[in-house]
Amino acid sequence: MNIEILAIGDELLIGQTINTNASWLGQELSKIGARVTRSIVVADDKHRILEALDHCYPETNCVIITGGLGPTKDDITKHTLCEFFETKLEIHQPTLTKIEAYFASRNRPMLESNIQQAALPVDCEILPNKYGTAAGMMFEKNGRYCVSLPGVPYEMKGIVTEELIPRLMQRFQLKAMYHYTALTQGIGESFLAEQISDWEDRIRERGFGLAYLPSPGLVKLRITSYEGKEDQTEIMEFFRELSNRLPEAVFGYEHDSLPEVIGKLLNNKRKTIGTVESCTSGLLAQQITSVSGASDYFMGSLLTYSNDLKHRICGVSVDSLLSEGAVSEKVALEMAENGAKKLGVDVCISTTGIAGPNGGTVDKPVGLVWVGLCISGKTIARKFQFGDNRERNLQMTVLSALNWLRYELVKE
Amino acid sequence: MNIEILAIGDELLIGQTINTNASWLGQELSKIGARVTRSIVVADDKHRILEALDHCYPETNCVIITGGLGPTKDDITKHTLCEFFETKLEIHQPTLTKIEAYFASRNRPMLESNIQQAALPVDCEILPNKYGTAAGMMFEKNGRYCVSLPGVPYEMKGIVTEELIPRLMQRFQLKAMYHYTALTQGIGESFLAEQISDWEDRIRERGFGLAYLPSPGLVKLRITSYEGKEDQTEIMEFFRELSNRLPEAVFGYEHDSLPEVIGKLLNNKRKTIGTVESCTSGLLAQQITSVSGASDYFMGSLLTYSNDLKHRICGVSVDSLLSEGAVSEKVALEMAENGAKKLGVDVCISTTGIAGPNGGTVDKPVGLVWVGLCISGKTIARKFQFGDNRERNLQMTVLSALNWLRYELVKE
Repeated sequence: MNIEILAIGDELLIGQTINTNASWLGQELSKIGARVTRSIVVADDKHRILEALDHCYPETNCVIITGGLGPTKDDITKHTLCEFFETKLEIHQPTLTKIEAYFASRNRPMLESNIQQAALPVDCEILPNKYGTAAGMMFEKNGRYCVSLPGVPYEMKGIVTEELIPRLMQRFQLKAMYHYTALTQGIGESFLAEQISDWEDRIRERGFGLAYLPSPGLVKLRITSYEGKEDQTEIMEFFRELSNRLPEAVFGYEHDSLPEVIGKLLNNKRKTIGTVESCTSGLLAQQITSVSGASDYFMGSLLTYSNDLKHRICGVSVDSLLSEGAVSEKVALEMAENGAKKLGVDVCISTTGIAGPNGGTVDKPVGLVWVGLCISGKTIARKFQFGDNRERNLQMTVLSALNWLRYELVKE
Repeated sequence: MNIEILAIGDELLIGQTINTNASWLGQELSKIGARVTRSIVVADDKHRILEALDHCYPETNCVIITGGLGPTKDDITKHTLCEFFETKLEIHQPTLTKIEAYFASRNRPMLESNIQQAALPVDCEILPNKYGTAAGMMFEKNGRYCVSLPGVPYEMKGIVTEELIPRLMQRFQLKAMYHYTALTQGIGESFLAEQISDWEDRIRERGFGLAYLPSPGLVKLRITSYEGKEDQTEIMEFFRELSNRLPEAVFGYEHDSLPEVIGKLLNNKRKTIGTVESCTSGLLAQQITSVSGASDYFMGSLLTYSNDLKHRICGVSVDSLLSEGAVSEKVALEMAENGAKKLGVDVCISTTGIAGPNGGTVDKPVGLVWVGLCISGKTIARKFQFGDNRERNLQMTVLSALNWLRYELVKE
């Protein structure tokens, strides 16, 4: 089943707005096995829209139009569609009632332009919009469909999910695919693929799809069943095996985040946490507290950017700083251990590294980071060598530190 | 002058990648007065590309194609263009030399597919690519142009800025508009517009354009001359007036950032800085250190998330915490003043607030933030009331604190 997307809007052509609607539609339609074969953007102009429809409609099973349905512009799209499908507008009573209720509930006066939003083409199916006043429209002619949707993303998404996808699935006998995603940290994409190649083979032999979705520091692994949710149990079994094989790497599923996962572990174990940060300069603390309710376990941090403060407020020995340098195993260990005491916390993570772009030497190049961890009475440190991008190095440090902490908490 | 954009790539249609190239091109082409009339995405498929070219090329002055030039896929686009323009591929020696140098400098072996990237159509102008191995191509036929560019954004942007825009301006006699942008913080868009309405009127009377570009916490003001850079001095005069009228709000121009502006001020005045943060939990320190070289002035921070740590490591009095609460003027003042001493810095900023979504009361609702500032021997505090979005509140706190600090440094 083929689909063409037609987005209407000058703001898309001049780059004021990015056409995220098209990519969201592409993702959602792929999930039900429909194929977007072309995506077009044209201006808010009747002739441009008609020309695009003339060109697309005969070549596809369904054209999905987004945009041009607001109260100020609705004449263009609706009238253009009436012309194209040789029909006319009439007040659609259920839609008018909804618009009236919408304005009444907000205590706002209704203008003539709002009433006109209930004027809809006679020969089309109305796709109700729960999130705004512009209804969706679905035309049919010779077994081909043309759908017109508002451009406001959350209104468009609501109508597509609740009204359009079920209709397309039924009329084109499509099956919803089922996806589930595991989140891994700390193993690069190609190395990961090598380690789990037998697992991957079995997934593909079973007829499931497997996608590696890498982003800086993370690799997501998505298994897809083309038969739908009935394969859920079997897919979970594959993920259970993965997690048993790579417990250091797999930190969660679907929309989990490391700060959330760690927050739950700390809450369950009734442990408090703090950080002593040099290179990350607060990024680690800020990530830990990005979860609402973090004050239950996060107490505070010492950001010791200067060597003087490493010594003065965290008690790192001048000797270690002079003999080993600030970016060293010894200093990372002292930062974590002393920090736990000064902050009075059960768990303390420390970071010290060369984020770049400047400050690297032959022995200690840009991207070198030591992370210290004081937990359950022991203090350990790990060395990481990242790249030459400052921002990326800091992100990688935080992800690596949090995932390491997670694994130590799980193992306890 | 009309332009059509044709993006090639399955990844765009299935929504794995968002077509940001098209919106960037729309913005840049608008700046030279060219008009994007349509933007199309098609699959990596010869027939689809040819069909799109047949349809677009006769209707426009220039088609800009992005994507499909990588070493794995280049056959499709290049061969398709050769077919369309009835020409053939030949090794382009300057491009081959560049590709050879590229691989030699990285000490990587060159594959046959890399050599094939130097095979380019005979009848086209080559647009050199300084950032990668796929050259841009510019075809001409009957006064119409067709440009093919790689899809990798920074390669595409480099070729467009350095090679394509100058050629289009010359061949279509376009004039580059001249833009200059002032950055303001702390005054909302509509309130700002009211305060400077006479200034705005004079700008418009002079024939310049004025755009308000709001983003969370900031409003950018962009003046545009349609005549080009010759109006620069006059535009600067308008901005000088704005800055004199609103010195608290105008913090910089063009690509300035508050952390950079503050870094320069601190360096010039040879002052050091530290922070004592509660609600922002490191975000302020992290922003200050987002500038390379921040270690010249930033020493460190105390993140006192818990009341216990506010007292224990920052010396906030138990009395103030109990009588006024952690989110209060008194605690913000003590945090900043004691922090300056503990950290041994010239300037110390403190934050304490209710970021939300939970923790608000009738007296102290979500979004209430106190910022303290200890500078040149005096300590002052300011109250802010933001909204109910946690992330937004933290961002607004950081921007407001940094801009306040900037103004205090400038006034000194």
